[in-house]
Amino acid sequence: MSNERLIYLPLGGAGEVGLNSYVYGYGQPNKERFVLIDLGVAFPNMETSPGVDLIFPDMTWLMKHVKRLEAIFITHAHEDHVGAMAHYCDVLPVPIYVRLFTANILMDKMKDLGKSVEKIKVVRRWTDTIDTGSFRVRFLPVSHSIPESSSLVIESPGGTVIHTGDFKIDPGPVVGAAFDVDLWKNVSSKGIHALVCDSTNVHSGAAGRSESGLAPEIESLIKRAKGMVIATTFASNIARVKTLADAAVRAGRSICILGRAMRRMVDTAVRVGVLTDFPKTVSPENARDIPRENLMLIVTGSQGEPRAASAQLSRGKYMKLEVREGDLFLFSSKTIPGNERGVLQIINQFSNAGVDVIDDSFPHYHVSGHANRPDLEMLHQLVHPKIIIPMHGEHRHLREHARLCRQNGYQSIVATNGTIVDLSGDVPVVAGYVETGRDYLDGKVKYSARDGIVRERLNMAVNGHVSVNVVYSPRSKPTVQVFLETMGLSKYGRSGLLDRELHDQLTVTIKAADRSVLENDTALREVLEHTVKQTCRAEIGKTPTMIIMLNRLN
Amino acid sequence: MSNERLIYLPLGGAGEVGLNSYVYGYGQPNKERFVLIDLGVAFPNMETSPGVDLIFPDMTWLMKHVKRLEAIFITHAHEDHVGAMAHYCDVLPVPIYVRLFTANILMDKMKDLGKSVEKIKVVRRWTDTIDTGSFRVRFLPVSHSIPESSSLVIESPGGTVIHTGDFKIDPGPVVGAAFDVDLWKNVSSKGIHALVCDSTNVHSGAAGRSESGLAPEIESLIKRAKGMVIATTFASNIARVKTLADAAVRAGRSICILGRAMRRMVDTAVRVGVLTDFPKTVSPENARDIPRENLMLIVTGSQGEPRAASAQLSRGKYMKLEVREGDLFLFSSKTIPGNERGVLQIINQFSNAGVDVIDDSFPHYHVSGHANRPDLEMLHQLVHPKIIIPMHGEHRHLREHARLCRQNGYQSIVATNGTIVDLSGDVPVVAGYVETGRDYLDGKVKYSARDGIVRERLNMAVNGHVSVNVVYSPRSKPTVQVFLETMGLSKYGRSGLLDRELHDQLTVTIKAADRSVLENDTALREVLEHTVKQTCRAEIGKTPTMIIMLNRLN
Repeated sequence: MSNERLIYLPLGGAGEVGLNSYVYGYGQPNKERFVLIDLGVAFPNMETSPGVDLIFPDMTWLMKHVKRLEAIFITHAHEDHVGAMAHYCDVLPVPIYVRLFTANILMDKMKDLGKSVEKIKVVRRWTDTIDTGSFRVRFLPVSHSIPESSSLVIESPGGTVIHTGDFKIDPGPVVGAAFDVDLWKNVSSKGIHALVCDSTNVHSGAAGRSESGLAPEIESLIKRAKGMVIATTFASNIARVKTLADAAVRAGRSICILGRAMRRMVDTAVRVGVLTDFPKTVSPENARDIPRENLMLIVTGSQGEPRAASAQLSRGKYMKLEVREGDLFLFSSKTIPGNERGVLQIINQFSNAGVDVIDDSFPHYHVSGHANRPDLEMLHQLVHPKIIIPMHGEHRHLREHARLCRQNGYQSIVATNGTIVDLSGDVPVVAGYVETGRDYLDGKVKYSARDGIVRERLNMAVNGHVSVNVVYSPRSKPTVQVFLETMGLSKYGRSGLLDRELHDQLTVTIKAADRSVLENDTALREVLEHTVKQTCRAEIGKTPTMIIMLNRLN
Repeated sequence: MSNERLIYLPLGGAGEVGLNSYVYGYGQPNKERFVLIDLGVAFPNMETSPGVDLIFPDMTWLMKHVKRLEAIFITHAHEDHVGAMAHYCDVLPVPIYVRLFTANILMDKMKDLGKSVEKIKVVRRWTDTIDTGSFRVRFLPVSHSIPESSSLVIESPGGTVIHTGDFKIDPGPVVGAAFDVDLWKNVSSKGIHALVCDSTNVHSGAAGRSESGLAPEIESLIKRAKGMVIATTFASNIARVKTLADAAVRAGRSICILGRAMRRMVDTAVRVGVLTDFPKTVSPENARDIPRENLMLIVTGSQGEPRAASAQLSRGKYMKLEVREGDLFLFSSKTIPGNERGVLQIINQFSNAGVDVIDDSFPHYHVSGHANRPDLEMLHQLVHPKIIIPMHGEHRHLREHARLCRQNGYQSIVATNGTIVDLSGDVPVVAGYVETGRDYLDGKVKYSARDGIVRERLNMAVNGHVSVNVVYSPRSKPTVQVFLETMGLSKYGRSGLLDRELHDQLTVTIKAADRSVLENDTALREVLEHTVKQTCRAEIGKTPTMIIMLNRLN
């Protein structure tokens, strides 16, 4: 038994933003029994994944070893941790352990997809202990930007690991319990072998600020406002929604929540009891009758999502509510890198409508949900493990976090997706690599990012498209007819209509072709492709994608 | 003659980033004679303009009134001010007045496109005066981030306007003359009617910093570096390239410039005499033989452009030079909003290669080329016009700038692209609107953004594509054959191969169709489209773009 080992294997989230998905295993090499922590999504963009609905971690490795999987644990209800779960619960035949709030969010998703929710096991309190094959797991509460976020304390014969999940150290999180230093001390006092730790804010040098510090600033801003106030934040940031709502009430305003995701989060939080004393809200219909100076909208779309409430309001109206000159729009959020363009578009549209916008260049109205560098160091000290493995971050975050750990005397390495880390000894050792990647949900189907489908789309988007169709009728005198259409290409080239020029050149090519070429699909396709390429290059300076259909009639 | 008027009409750059293009006119309404200031480009992106090479201002209005155009003036050689000039010089039959450095940059562009450069008129010194029909124009030097930037002093019977172009107030710009407060005072002492003013940094509340302040910080950073140092900045920021090069020399390093655009800028600056004492550089070939700790690369690609030197180095090598663990990469630049994703990718790739990256979160290694809010106010006071019109900025910048001006007692309005502003009186008056937009250069052709070509491309990128082709042979017994191919779509749907299912459903549709449908192109096309849509929705949950070719054989 001496060769049993404790391993850590990130399948997503280590070296990228989103897709959090981490495996721990214990047992003899290649016979380890596994637990999976989180199964999140990432969001597509036009540059790399046009038309895709959601991005999932590559499940190939996990499916191959699914018989060795014992259980799944979800740390919290953010999309990048729970978003893929409902899409794969069918094929992962193990219990899913979650806290109550997360359970409700996940159940809604599973019901939306028509999935059975019976695998969901609610963990009621931190002292609840889940025993899987080799692991004993508990949910250790942490503060973050969504209720009931948890670190996981994972005991195994190879030592105890704490997997932080997303966290910050907040003594006043507004919703839910404060970060419990004594509890963490107590848990850590038994000796923690390894800490696998959130790296998001390792580059932020100032100590983190508390959620509770925002209330006075937000209240004072709303009180100074003359027209309607609209505030946006992440739909799941229940604490912030509460802070905004409370401030509005104190400023004598009625509250209206716009956006299904936020409404759902608030309702769920109230239902499960993590959100209490939430002020009464008014419906969008009733909001229309309230004087603007007595109204505050709390809305979705803080990242510039074009169909969310913020963007729709900036373009005109949403649910028949509209902005006017003199209104105030507050981003109580930070723009996630990559979303700047959409957010700026909203800001400029509001500017055009005469609405004043407070964006994330003002630090007073938003705090991060992740631990800044000094808070990371504080947690390291509190837990005082032998080994710290940075997770949840791009490569630059993991690298800087590992450097910080080593500076402070901990063993640490950068382990990106697919790295099997042997945590059995005093030093983390890379024990191998598995292939990882991304899967796409696109409409109703899933496929691998490696399948080339999205590459074809990007290629069409950049280069335009030509469909050519040649009909070959081998009658007494063989006749060949050419048909074609373009899409996403200039109608005119240097010589006039592009279609006509292509048609003429293709006809010339076919007339000039030997019978041996005409009767050989591969050869004919080749000369037609060549003609399309040459003609398009000469006419419009582009090489389009093309579909060439050779139709040989009987 | 009393109804003659002085008008200002932005065609690009007012309410957006890039595409700077401003018209001034003087004369009776609708008979004004015009001058054009700048003709810049903007850069495409995958979200809104995939496959496009360059974006130009919509030239429709200008071409319609080209006979009333007297002259063109280019304030400086940045792409967003001069980039479109070479593409339209043929159709704008008027002289182009520029300073010597700008002239050389523009001439290179025109020669690249095979255009005659004879229209270019070099303005040697600030006292040179250009008389057009109604205007007398002089180039008033300003500091900015490229040599020989100029404001324009535009005298007319309706009063004098100063058009700032891009500027900052820099007493030590490293290359070129310092901002000359006395000269500006002198010019302004004769009474300036209107100031049309750069708005880029109106939201930056701190006083601007001087280019010359960077040298000590950069030098100290390079001296501390152990491996190779690579620094990137905007190719045209000659002053910064010099600061970087001088610092490298003082730190005992040889300099190698990588990237054609930067090499060209430096060579031009040396040739025309605006850049003196530039240190000797080594070629990439020779750089390979220099010990890493004695080498500094100054490279293009500060905005994450995937084909520029920075991105290529981050992915492996460029010109056979490669980075190694322990090297240092410095962004001596700011990431322009919208470019974050590309820049972060480079940073993470360098991180993966063990290279330390100093990005724009460190303020010590870059200063902006635009006047911050206090400097704008200083210029307003210095010039002390009756009217200030904000230009060069998104709507949020123009609006904030106009507000600032009004606060300080100036007449001001927000005039976005297409707004004709009558500047004749003491108060600016909106006298009308002209339609403006964007034109695209795509390969060898230009077309309007309104033409729908790019919309088709985005549609293909998001929804994928199906080409269907139906061959109808009206022989003794009519036969209909269906051929199809997809692009950018999942190969498999719910029932198996998507192609096969589409083929089957289309065949069923055709078999079921009445003769009246089969013989009517519109009707047949409609049922085929409907079948493709329904089948794709059912199979893969998407509605692809499609080309349907109906081939009726004789």
